[in-house]
Amino acid sequence: MRELLEAVAEGEVTVSEAESMLSGYATTEAGRFDAARETRRGVPEAILCDGKTPDEVATLATIAVETAGRALITRASDEQIQAVRARLAEEHPDANVRVRERADVLVAHAVGFDRPELDVTVGIVSAGTSDAIPAGEAAVVAEEMGATVEELHDVGVASLVRVLDEVDALRAADVLVVAAGREGALPTVVAGLVDTPVIGLPVSNGYGHAGQGSAALSGMLQSCTVLSTVNIDAGFVAGAQAGLIARAVDAARE
Amino acid sequence: MRELLEAVAEGEVTVSEAESMLSGYATTEAGRFDAARETRRGVPEAILCDGKTPDEVATLATIAVETAGRALITRASDEQIQAVRARLAEEHPDANVRVRERADVLVAHAVGFDRPELDVTVGIVSAGTSDAIPAGEAAVVAEEMGATVEELHDVGVASLVRVLDEVDALRAADVLVVAAGREGALPTVVAGLVDTPVIGLPVSNGYGHAGQGSAALSGMLQSCTVLSTVNIDAGFVAGAQAGLIARAVDAARE
Amino acid sequence: MRELLEAVAEGEVTVSEAESMLSGYATTEAGRFDAARETRRGVPEAILCDGKTPDEVATLATIAVETAGRALITRASDEQIQAVRARLAEEHPDANVRVRERADVLVAHAVGFDRPELDVTVGIVSAGTSDAIPAGEAAVVAEEMGATVEELHDVGVASLVRVLDEVDALRAADVLVVAAGREGALPTVVAGLVDTPVIGLPVSNGYGHAGQGSAALSGMLQSCTVLSTVNIDAGFVAGAQAGLIARAVDAARE
Amino acid sequence: MRELLEAVAEGEVTVSEAESMLSGYATTEAGRFDAARETRRGVPEAILCDGKTPDEVATLATIAVETAGRALITRASDEQIQAVRARLAEEHPDANVRVRERADVLVAHAVGFDRPELDVTVGIVSAGTSDAIPAGEAAVVAEEMGATVEELHDVGVASLVRVLDEVDALRAADVLVVAAGREGALPTVVAGLVDTPVIGLPVSNGYGHAGQGSAALSGMLQSCTVLSTVNIDAGFVAGAQAGLIARAVDAARE
Amino acid sequence: MRELLEAVAEGEVTVSEAESMLSGYATTEAGRFDAARETRRGVPEAILCDGKTPDEVATLATIAVETAGRALITRASDEQIQAVRARLAEEHPDANVRVRERADVLVAHAVGFDRPELDVTVGIVSAGTSDAIPAGEAAVVAEEMGATVEELHDVGVASLVRVLDEVDALRAADVLVVAAGREGALPTVVAGLVDTPVIGLPVSNGYGHAGQGSAALSGMLQSCTVLSTVNIDAGFVAGAQAGLIARAVDAARE
Amino acid sequence: MRELLEAVAEGEVTVSEAESMLSGYATTEAGRFDAARETRRGVPEAILCDGKTPDEVATLATIAVETAGRALITRASDEQIQAVRARLAEEHPDANVRVRERADVLVAHAVGFDRPELDVTVGIVSAGTSDAIPAGEAAVVAEEMGATVEELHDVGVASLVRVLDEVDALRAADVLVVAAGREGALPTVVAGLVDTPVIGLPVSNGYGHAGQGSAALSGMLQSCTVLSTVNIDAGFVAGAQAGLIARAVDAARE
Amino acid sequence: MRELLEAVAEGEVTVSEAESMLSGYATTEAGRFDAARETRRGVPEAILCDGKTPDEVATLATIAVETAGRALITRASDEQIQAVRARLAEEHPDANVRVRERADVLVAHAVGFDRPELDVTVGIVSAGTSDAIPAGEAAVVAEEMGATVEELHDVGVASLVRVLDEVDALRAADVLVVAAGREGALPTVVAGLVDTPVIGLPVSNGYGHAGQGSAALSGMLQSCTVLSTVNIDAGFVAGAQAGLIARAVDAARE
Amino acid sequence: MRELLEAVAEGEVTVSEAESMLSGYATTEAGRFDAARETRRGVPEAILCDGKTPDEVATLATIAVETAGRALITRASDEQIQAVRARLAEEHPDANVRVRERADVLVAHAVGFDRPELDVTVGIVSAGTSDAIPAGEAAVVAEEMGATVEELHDVGVASLVRVLDEVDALRAADVLVVAAGREGALPTVVAGLVDTPVIGLPVSNGYGHAGQGSAALSGMLQSCTVLSTVNIDAGFVAGAQAGLIARAVDAARE
Repeated sequence: MRELLEAVAEGEVTVSEAESMLSGYATTEAGRFDAARETRRGVPEAILCDGKTPDEVATLATIAVETAGRALITRASDEQIQAVRARLAEEHPDANVRVRERADVLVAHAVGFDRPELDVTVGIVSAGTSDAIPAGEAAVVAEEMGATVEELHDVGVASLVRVLDEVDALRAADVLVVAAGREGALPTVVAGLVDTPVIGLPVSNGYGHAGQGSAALSGMLQSCTVLSTVNIDAGFVAGAQAGLIARAVDAARE
Repeated sequence: MRELLEAVAEGEVTVSEAESMLSGYATTEAGRFDAARETRRGVPEAILCDGKTPDEVATLATIAVETAGRALITRASDEQIQAVRARLAEEHPDANVRVRERADVLVAHAVGFDRPELDVTVGIVSAGTSDAIPAGEAAVVAEEMGATVEELHDVGVASLVRVLDEVDALRAADVLVVAAGREGALPTVVAGLVDTPVIGLPVSNGYGHAGQGSAALSGMLQSCTVLSTVNIDAGFVAGAQAGLIARAVDAARE
Repeated sequence: MRELLEAVAEGEVTVSEAESMLSGYATTEAGRFDAARETRRGVPEAILCDGKTPDEVATLATIAVETAGRALITRASDEQIQAVRARLAEEHPDANVRVRERADVLVAHAVGFDRPELDVTVGIVSAGTSDAIPAGEAAVVAEEMGATVEELHDVGVASLVRVLDEVDALRAADVLVVAAGREGALPTVVAGLVDTPVIGLPVSNGYGHAGQGSAALSGMLQSCTVLSTVNIDAGFVAGAQAGLIARAVDAARE
Repeated sequence: MRELLEAVAEGEVTVSEAESMLSGYATTEAGRFDAARETRRGVPEAILCDGKTPDEVATLATIAVETAGRALITRASDEQIQAVRARLAEEHPDANVRVRERADVLVAHAVGFDRPELDVTVGIVSAGTSDAIPAGEAAVVAEEMGATVEELHDVGVASLVRVLDEVDALRAADVLVVAAGREGALPTVVAGLVDTPVIGLPVSNGYGHAGQGSAALSGMLQSCTVLSTVNIDAGFVAGAQAGLIARAVDAARE
Repeated sequence: MRELLEAVAEGEVTVSEAESMLSGYATTEAGRFDAARETRRGVPEAILCDGKTPDEVATLATIAVETAGRALITRASDEQIQAVRARLAEEHPDANVRVRERADVLVAHAVGFDRPELDVTVGIVSAGTSDAIPAGEAAVVAEEMGATVEELHDVGVASLVRVLDEVDALRAADVLVVAAGREGALPTVVAGLVDTPVIGLPVSNGYGHAGQGSAALSGMLQSCTVLSTVNIDAGFVAGAQAGLIARAVDAARE
Repeated sequence: MRELLEAVAEGEVTVSEAESMLSGYATTEAGRFDAARETRRGVPEAILCDGKTPDEVATLATIAVETAGRALITRASDEQIQAVRARLAEEHPDANVRVRERADVLVAHAVGFDRPELDVTVGIVSAGTSDAIPAGEAAVVAEEMGATVEELHDVGVASLVRVLDEVDALRAADVLVVAAGREGALPTVVAGLVDTPVIGLPVSNGYGHAGQGSAALSGMLQSCTVLSTVNIDAGFVAGAQAGLIARAVDAARE
Repeated sequence: MRELLEAVAEGEVTVSEAESMLSGYATTEAGRFDAARETRRGVPEAILCDGKTPDEVATLATIAVETAGRALITRASDEQIQAVRARLAEEHPDANVRVRERADVLVAHAVGFDRPELDVTVGIVSAGTSDAIPAGEAAVVAEEMGATVEELHDVGVASLVRVLDEVDALRAADVLVVAAGREGALPTVVAGLVDTPVIGLPVSNGYGHAGQGSAALSGMLQSCTVLSTVNIDAGFVAGAQAGLIARAVDAARE
Repeated sequence: MRELLEAVAEGEVTVSEAESMLSGYATTEAGRFDAARETRRGVPEAILCDGKTPDEVATLATIAVETAGRALITRASDEQIQAVRARLAEEHPDANVRVRERADVLVAHAVGFDRPELDVTVGIVSAGTSDAIPAGEAAVVAEEMGATVEELHDVGVASLVRVLDEVDALRAADVLVVAAGREGALPTVVAGLVDTPVIGLPVSNGYGHAGQGSAALSGMLQSCTVLSTVNIDAGFVAGAQAGLIARAVDAARE
C-alpha cells in the first residue's frame, strides 16, 4: 500500500485510480452502491424481500432500476410483487418486468438496459416442485449475469434412470447448480457423471430429524465426490457463483 | 392378564406355561440369560468388548459357549481376541473359533452346536474398507442366525456404474443391509433399484461438519425412498434385524 | 453392464428388456411415474399434502387414480380432503374414496382397482391419540400393500399391565410397527416380548429439551434390543417398510 | 433482612445467630468449608478426582479426614486410590478406609467418626456393569448420609420379567435412584410400578447418535411418568438428593 | 414371578391379589385408567390441553370428574376453560370448579370428593410473572396431592437481598420447587441456603443462544450444589415429584 | 436411455461407446478405478491416510503409481511418509517423490508421467501456520491438475492492511481458495475485493463454543457476499473444485 | 460479613448503612425495585414487551414513570406503543414521550426527570436496516445512561471502503457497540482498527445453517481480535454495558 | 477516503501519515507485527502454545522479546516452558522471566522494557482451582497492560456468604473479570452487587449435558443482569478487554 500512496504523492497515479485500486470501484456524485456492486463483482445486487413491507420493496426496486438499470427481487410474496408492478407501472412504464412465479423472483429492466451476454451454459438441476424457489433464483441470477441457462427438473436420485437419461444434457453444461432437499444425494450422483464444476444447493424441505435442508447440507459437505456448496435455500448465491465461473470461462473464450 | 391368572388358579394353565406366556421364556435352575435371549428373540446374545478387559471378555466368552453353545464377540481388539483364543484353547479345546479380523468379530461354537439354517439370502452391501467393521458385524450375525449371506463391497455412489453392475446381485437377495459413511446416499440409491426391504447402516467415517456418521444417519432418515435405519456403526443391530426378517420369510417357506 | 450391452448388440436381449433390467421398469408412451414406482418397489406412491394448495392436491389425486388406479394422500387438511372429494365426485364419481380422519389420510380406488392381498399380518401399536397421525399413515399404507393390519392402541409403557395384556396380540403379528412419542420406550419394551421384526416409529410430541420426537428417535436408535427405525412422524415409511417385509413373507408362502 | 439487622442492633439476636441465619453456618477460627457444607446441607463434601494429581487427592483426603472426620473420594483411578491409602496409612493409620472399586469411590472415616443413621431405605437400581460407576457413587453417598441402601442390579428393560421379579423390592424402598444408559427407559418403567419418588440417573454409555448418555437423559426428561433427573453420570448428585429425601422422611419419623 | 404364580396355582394368593402385586392396581368392570393412576402413583392424572379441541377437553374433564372425582386440566386456553366450565355447569352443576388463570390450570372436584391432606409443606419459588405458568402448575398439583403449598414469587438471583429476605420461608418448607428461566441460577442459590430437597424447574423464557429455557436446564443439570431437575416448563412433573416426597414424609409422620 | 439402447441394437453405436456414454469411462481388463476417476472427473484420486497403517498406505501408493502414473497422499504422518518413500525407493526407484511437509501431503510421479498444464492461475490464500494443512492440500491438488498456483499466506482479517496490500495479487488469480479458521471472515473480505470465483475453506482451529472450524464454516455459509464453501479442513475438495474451474477456463482459452 | 454484623451490634454502623452495604440499596416504605436497580447498577430498568398485553405494558410504564421518573420500553409493537401513549396522555400528560420506531423502543420521562450527563462518546455501528432494532435499543439505553451516542450505519464488511471511510469516526468514540448479523465479521474488522473497547452485538438475521444470528454470535466469540459479546439481539445489554464503561470513564474524568 | 487521497496528492498529508490513518500503524523496514499490534490495540500479542513444538515456541518467544521487548506465552506445557527458559537463558540471559504455573503462562521482559502503568484496578474473580488457567491468563494480560490486578478466588455461588464477604473488594475494582464453570452463575450474582462493568469468563469444566463450559457460556449470555462475555476459556480475551477498559479509564484520569 505504501508504494501506492507514494505514487499518488508523486502524481504517478491519479486519485481516482488509487481509489479504484484500493476499493474496486470509483465513487462519484451520482455513484450508488447497487451499481458499484455489479461493477466490482459482476453480480447484480438483489433485493431480498424478507421482513420488508410491499412499499419498501417497491421503493428499493425503483431506485435499483434508476441507478443500476435493473432490479432483481427475491423471495417476493404476491403482495410484494403487486406493489412493485404498480409502482413501476407508474414511474417507469416502459420498464420490462418479468416474474418467475414459482420462484418468487421478479426482474425489471430499464429501457435500454443491456444485459451481458456470455458464451457459456449454466445447468440448473432439481428434483421437482419443492426445489422450485431456490432453483429458480439460481436460474434467474445466472441468466441476468449473461449465461445461457439450461434447466433440468424432475431428476431424482431415487430413480436412477431419470438421472441417466439426462447424462448428455448434464455434460453439455459448463457449470452445474444442483438443488436437492431431503437427503441431498443428487449433487453427489451428478458430480460422479460429469467433469465440470458442480455447486450443491441444499433445499429446506424434509421434516423430523435433520429436516429443513439440514441433512441435504450435511450430505453435500460430506460428499465423496468433488463439490462446493452454499447455504440452505441460498439459490441466489449458487446462481451467482455459477455466473462468476461463467464469466471467467467467457473471458477466456475471447 | 386377569384371564390368564384365572386360568392358572383354575389349573387350566400350568405355572410354566403362564410364566412363558408372560415373559417369553421359562426359567429353570440351569437357565441362563444368554440362552434365553436367543430362545426368545432368535438373536444371539453378543458380547460387546468396549470397556472390558481381555480377561473379562474371555470369561464371558467361556460362559456363553457353555450355556448357549456359542459366543459372538464384537468390537474386539487384537489383545482381546488373543485372550479369548487362549482361554478357549485351554477350557474348550474342541470349540470351533472363527475370527473375522477386519470386522473385529470372533465367533466360537461349542462342539455339537447346531447353527440354524434358513433358506433366505441376506445381502450386505458396502462401499469399501472404511465400512468393514459394521458391515462385517452385520454379516456375521445374519449368518449366525442362519441366513445365507452375500456380500457386495466396493459399491460406491460416486461411480454409478459400479452400482448398476451389481443390480442382479442386489435383486437376488431377500433383504439387504446397506452400509455407508460420509453422505450415506448408497442405501437410497440401492432401494430405488430393488423391491425388497433395505436396512440402512450409517458408518462413522467422515470429518468436519456432520462427520463421524452423522450426515449418513441424517441422509438415511431423510431418504426419499423407503428405508429403515439403525444407529451409526450398529452393525450388530442391522444384521440381527435382517436375520429376524429372514426368519419370518423362512418360516413362511415351510 | 458390459455384458448386457453386448447382449443387446448381439440381439440376445431386446431393448425393452435391457431397459427394464437397467432401470427396474420399462417406459412407454403411456408410462407414468406413479405406476412405475409401485411396479418397481411395490410401494404405492403417496401424495404428501404439505405446502400444496387444495387445488394442486385434487389434480394430483385425479392423475393418480387415472394412471395408477389409486390415490394415497397423506397429511391432508380438512380443506384439502374436501377439494379431493369434490374433484373426484365430478371426474370419477364411481371411485371408492375412504378417509381416515384422525390420521389425515385419504385413499381413492378407481373402479376395478385390485388391491394386492398378502397372507401376512402387520401389527400397528401406539400409545394413544397423540400418535394417531403417523400410526394411521402406517396402517393405511400397509393395508394398501395388501397386508392384514391389526391395530393396538392405548398401549403405554408407563403402565406395564396394558402391554402385558396384549402379549398374545403382539406375538400374533408377522411384523410390528410401534409408534411412540415422548421418551419412545414402547418399541424397546415390545421388541423384548416378541421374536418378529419391530420397526420403531418416533412421534413428534413432547415439549422442552429433546421434544417434538427427538428423544423418541434417540431412544429407538440407542435401544438395547434389536429394532430398526424411521424418521420422526414418518408413518408412511414405517408402514411401507412393514409392507415390503410382508411381501417378502407372502412370496415365501406361495 | 432489615428486621434481622434491627434485631442485631437491639441486641435481641447475637452476631453468631445472625450470621448463621444469613448463611446457614457459623464460621470460627477452626472452621473449615468441608465441615460446613455437611452441617448446612447434610451432604458430605466429595473430592472429585478428575484433573487432580494423586498427590493432590491424597492431600485433600487428609484434610477432609482431619476437619470433617470423613473423606469421600469419587472417580478415583487406581493410582489415586493407592496414593490416598498410602498417605492415610502414614498420617492416620487408624482411619477406616473402604474402596468400592468398580465405582471408583473411596471413603475414609477418622477414628470415632459417627455416621448418621436414618430409618429409611434408598433403593439403587441399575441394568448392569456399565452403570456401575454412577450407581456405586449414588449408593455410597446415600449410605454415608445414613440411609439403608438396597441395590438391585441386572434389571434391564429389554427383559420385563427381570423388572417384574423385583417389584416387591422396588416397592419396599422409600425412595429410588434408577440408573440407565442407552435409551434410558428403566426409570420410566420402574416409576410406573411404585408410588415413591424416583430419581433418574442417566449413564454415559451407548455410541453413535445421542450416545454417551444423551438419549438416556432426553428420555428421562421426556418421561411420560413422574420423575426428576440429574445430569449424565452424576451419581453423587442422585445419591445425595435421595439422601436429602431420606433425611426429610427420617425427621418426620421421630 | 414364578413363586407368585405357584402361589396362585396353590390358592394361597387370590387372582386379584396377584394382579395387584403384578400391576399395582386391580381392574374391575367399572375400573378406569384415571382412577388407577392416582391409586397406583398417588399422582392425579392431568389432562394436557395442547392439541385438543375445546370440545375434547370438556369431554375428558367430564369423564375425569365422573371416574376419579376430580379433573386437573393444564395449559388450557381461555376458550378451552370456557368449554369445560359450560359442560360441567350442564352435566355436573354441583362440581366445585377452580381456575388459576395466569397458570392456565383448571381443577374440578365432584361433590363429595375428598382431597388427601398431608402434614407437609411444599415451597414453590419463582422469579416473577414469566414463570407463572409452570410454577402455578406445580403449586396446583402439589396442593391436589394434599400438601400445604407456600408460594414465594419475585425472588430473583440478580438481587440477592430478595433471596436472603426469604431465607426463613425457604427453610420452613419440607421440599422446594424452584422455577427459573434465563440463566436458571435461582435453584442453585436456594439449594445453598437450605438442607431440604430442591427440585429445579427450568422455564422457557429467554431469547437468542440457549433461549427458551435451554440455558436454565443446562445450568440446573450442571449445578455445583445438589439438585434434581425436570424438563423445561414441566411444572406438573415438578409439583408431582414434590407431592410424592411430601407423601413419603407424611407417611413417616404417622 | 432408450434411444441409446436402440442405437446399440442397430449397430450405430458400439458397445464401448455406449458404456462410455453411460458411465463416463470404458473398463478394460487392465482398467483400474484410480485411473478412471481422473479420466472421468479430471481430479486425481487421493489416498487419505486416516486410519490406515503405514504398510497399507505404501501399498496403495505403489498401485496408484503403477496404474495412474501418480500417487497423491494426504494427511500423512511422518511414519506413513517414510513407509511410502521406502517402498517406492525399492519398487519404483526412478519415481519422482515430493513431500510438502507442513501440509502432510506426498506426491509421487512415475517416470514419464505427464502432468496436465493449464494456462490458469489458482490463488490459495490463508492467514498463517494454523491453516497450513488444508491450504497445502488445496495447493497441491490444484497444481497436480495443472494450474499455476499462487500462494498468499499471513493474510489475516484482524489487520486489514495486510489484506489490502495483497489486492493486486488477489485480483491476478482466475479463481481463489481462501482458507480461514476461528471466525472465518477472510473469504468474505476477499470476495468483496475481487470479481472472480472464491471458494471458502474453513479450518479446524479455535476452541470453546463453535470451535474446531464450526464458526468458520457457519460464517462462510452466512457470508453476505457470493462464496461457495467446502467442509471443514476439506483442502483436497477445495483445491479440486478450483482445479475443475481452472480446467473449464483453460478449455475455453483454446 | 461477621465484622459488619459486629459493627452493627456495637452501633458503629447503622442498620440502613449495613443494609446498603450488603445489598447495594436501602429499602423504605416507598421503595421500588425499578428505582433501586438504577441506583445500584446505574442501568435503567427496561420493560420488555414480549408476551405482555398492551394493557400490562401501559400499567408497567405508568409505574416506572411514577417511581423511577422514567420508563424505558423495548420490543414494543405498534399496538403496545399506542397503549402506552394513551395511558400516559391520560395519567401523566406532561411526561415527555419519545419513540424510536424502527427500534421498537419508547422512552418516557416524568416532568423534572434529570437524565445523567456523561462526558463520554459511545459509538453504535451497524450494517443497515436489518440491525435496526438491537442497534437502536443499544443507542437508547446508552443515551439514557448519559453518554453522547454517535451512530454509524450502513457499514458492511463486504465493502471494505465503507469501513475505512469511517475510521476517524470509529476512533473518536470511547467505546463501541458493533452490531452485525449474517457472518458477523464487522466487530472483528472494526476492533482491528481502534484501540478502545468493542462490544459485539450479534443480530438475528440470516437463514439456513447457523441462521438467526447463530453464525454471528459464533464468529464474535471466535474472533481473532479482542472483543466481548452479548447474546443475539441483546441490544439493551450491549448498550448498558457500554453505558457502564462510559460511567467508569466519566467518573475518572472528574 | 477520497479526501485523504486528495490530501496526499496535494501534499497536505504525508505518505506515512496517510498510511497510519488508513491502517493504524506505520510499517518500516524494522517493523514487526507483534510490536504493531500492541501499538495499534494496546494489547500485547500472545503466543498460544496449542499445536506448536517446544522449539517453535522458544523461537517465537525470542523474536517477541527482540521486537516487542516482551513475550507473553499462554497454554504452555512444562516442556514448552522449559524450552523457552533454556533458549532465553542462552540468547537473552538478562531478560526477566516469570511463570505463573497453575495458569500455564510465561512472561518475559527484555532488559529495559517498560511496562505501562495505569491507575486502574482490574478485579479477577473465580471459584477455585478449576478456574485457575483462564483466570490466570486474564490476570497476567491485564497486568501486562498496566492495570493493578486484584484477585479474589474461592468465591462460589453455592455458598453466598463467601460472595457477600467480598462485596467491598468487588466494589473496589474499576472493572471485573468473573470466571466460572459448571452452571456459570457467579458473574450474574456479582454483577448484581456492583455498578462497574463485569466481563463473564466461562470455564471448561463440568461433564455430561452442557459440560465443558457450555452451560456456563449459555448462562452468561442469558444472564438477567448486564454482562458481556467471551468464549469458553478465553482468559486472554477477557483480561485484554478489561485492560482496554482500564486504558480508557486511565486516559480519562489524566
